[in-house]
Amino acid sequence: MPQLIGNTFLSNPPSQLVLENGFHFVHGQTLAPFTIVYETFGELNADKSNAILVCHALSPSAHLAGKYTTDDDEKPGWWDGLVGYGKGIDLEKYFVVCVNFPGSPFGTTSPASVDPRSSRPYGSHYPWPAVEDMVHTQKLVLDHLGIDRLLAIAGGSLGGMQVLMWCACYPQRAESIIAMASGAAVPVEGVAWHIISRKIIESDLRFRGGDYYDDPVPLRGLEVARMVGHMTYLSTHALQTKFGRRRRETTRQFEIESYFEHQGKKFATLYDANSYVRVQAAMDEMDLEEQYGTLQSAFRNWRGRTLLISFDTDWLFPPEESENVIAAMRSLGTDARHLRLFSNNGHDSFLIDYDLITPPVREFLQSVDRTRKRQP
Amino acid sequence: MPQLIGNTFLSNPPSQLVLENGFHFVHGQTLAPFTIVYETFGELNADKSNAILVCHALSPSAHLAGKYTTDDDEKPGWWDGLVGYGKGIDLEKYFVVCVNFPGSPFGTTSPASVDPRSSRPYGSHYPWPAVEDMVHTQKLVLDHLGIDRLLAIAGGSLGGMQVLMWCACYPQRAESIIAMASGAAVPVEGVAWHIISRKIIESDLRFRGGDYYDDPVPLRGLEVARMVGHMTYLSTHALQTKFGRRRRETTRQFEIESYFEHQGKKFATLYDANSYVRVQAAMDEMDLEEQYGTLQSAFRNWRGRTLLISFDTDWLFPPEESENVIAAMRSLGTDARHLRLFSNNGHDSFLIDYDLITPPVREFLQSVDRTRKRQP
Repeated sequence: MPQLIGNTFLSNPPSQLVLENGFHFVHGQTLAPFTIVYETFGELNADKSNAILVCHALSPSAHLAGKYTTDDDEKPGWWDGLVGYGKGIDLEKYFVVCVNFPGSPFGTTSPASVDPRSSRPYGSHYPWPAVEDMVHTQKLVLDHLGIDRLLAIAGGSLGGMQVLMWCACYPQRAESIIAMASGAAVPVEGVAWHIISRKIIESDLRFRGGDYYDDPVPLRGLEVARMVGHMTYLSTHALQTKFGRRRRETTRQFEIESYFEHQGKKFATLYDANSYVRVQAAMDEMDLEEQYGTLQSAFRNWRGRTLLISFDTDWLFPPEESENVIAAMRSLGTDARHLRLFSNNGHDSFLIDYDLITPPVREFLQSVDRTRKRQP
Repeated sequence: MPQLIGNTFLSNPPSQLVLENGFHFVHGQTLAPFTIVYETFGELNADKSNAILVCHALSPSAHLAGKYTTDDDEKPGWWDGLVGYGKGIDLEKYFVVCVNFPGSPFGTTSPASVDPRSSRPYGSHYPWPAVEDMVHTQKLVLDHLGIDRLLAIAGGSLGGMQVLMWCACYPQRAESIIAMASGAAVPVEGVAWHIISRKIIESDLRFRGGDYYDDPVPLRGLEVARMVGHMTYLSTHALQTKFGRRRRETTRQFEIESYFEHQGKKFATLYDANSYVRVQAAMDEMDLEEQYGTLQSAFRNWRGRTLLISFDTDWLFPPEESENVIAAMRSLGTDARHLRLFSNNGHDSFLIDYDLITPPVREFLQSVDRTRKRQP
């Protein structure tokens, strides 16, 4: 048990898996060497049967929960509300792994990493990853840790899409899955906003096709694209109650504009434009129905248990997207359930409404754990 | 009766009202001389009692209906489905005026017009118009035509906002109003998208604060901003049925992207970036409740009849916005009705669903006409 800090804990530093022979992307390119950054939380038991993989979404890192230091100001990991000691994914019982996926700028070899052949950042030469590549890096880390079978794979949004991709690619590797605010493909409304976001970045003259790393100033295009992203995460109700048509203090500036500028600038100093366009494109390109012909085909070898959670005000992944996945899984005779929750927080509910998601996640994991232990 | 061409007619060429002493904007600037372009349709009767003012929205011009030539390829005016001989606003009975408002690039002195003091386009020096300025130019044209009292004022979207502004500014000048897909202020969701659109344009390094007229290439920022605009006009249902996740022909390009590029490029050659940011800002700044304290105060002198039409899938101006206006008007004892129509076409319904809007508009105008004629 690590040191507790308020409602969270002191987490392990990130680990690295270095692939000297490189990582092979599904679209054909290989980058070598290739570093995969991951974090682990809790303790792996002796028979390695208590491991849960959590897949992160577009903007977070492998820093899932806890704090790196005891510093008061440091924010804990991105799913600290759900993952921790005594929390929904309880680290007193489970060993949790989170892998920074290829394309993301938080440690794993990314477009901003130096290409050893040119001694310059990969930039425009970095591959366009697919969700399969995200899953493959996670599999490599699990192989490295000697974990053959996971108790569960969990994630929200793009993280949930990776979870569903696991069912299609490696259906034998997990007892169960939990996917929130997600689906087997992004519906057209989200695709359209993502396309616009990428055009905003790519239209920034300073983007230079992705080779902008000599320029120290954050890209305005990334700031504005992030504002579009924020809009897709917020529900109408959240916009109305948080901002409405209110002006900032005594100025004529709308509060929503002030919020956009703050969030956009913060994000553009932390994230990377090449990462943003690539990760969003990977999300848009995933379409299990298109890739496998039908959702039934995609999930034909999946025998584990499934918990999908959707939120009624999430218009990026409306509950119908979860319903489609559940229908396909049930037609194959697997134990698949869909919990449609009511929240005013839109797509971001899975990062906010821990009071709603903790009980079903806790009970589902306990149930999976019990069922599995009864097996010979 | 003019020459009929299929389902439309040969319209008059645009007219001009030149204000040699200039036009005074409500925020303080005066531009002199100032040209106001307008078009008229149908015949004004002897006692000038059959005039209807139509207010146009963000992107159209004063060319409301009809064609300028008998050319097959020419598209008729923007509300040709509603305004014409035998149509909802019937030119056999009514004389219709449409004025190109200040800020718009279609004839009236605009940011692209040459400033006589510098012999260069106004560009960044052009004022930021308010909706009141749009109404004032319309009033000047009506004064010029000797029309003291209109049978009706009609419009949709920003056009509908001008209609409501008329009730607040010049409540004695009309018997009735018709406002569609509109409200007394843009709700925050629309404001947020408009703010993002303006940031996209203003972030284009070639925009140069608005002084870009020496550069002959259309601004990419305007193209991408227009894509955001299209998203706000479309309903989720329209996106799903028109585009879905379909790819263009044998390519991997999403059909929605191909549509965006086509619409963006077309718009950027026709419209002007300085106009776009100014007209959208005017729309966002109008807020009758903020300006008058309450909606009741805004409409306290309005005695005419009101028809508001809203569309259930319009999320830019949801039906609640019309309901708020109606509630205020009814509390003042005026005859105000609200027709909430069901259409899958979102905000654009007022430009598409002529089968739905024609009967109530026709009947409302006939009723107003009858009531008025019975007066001494």
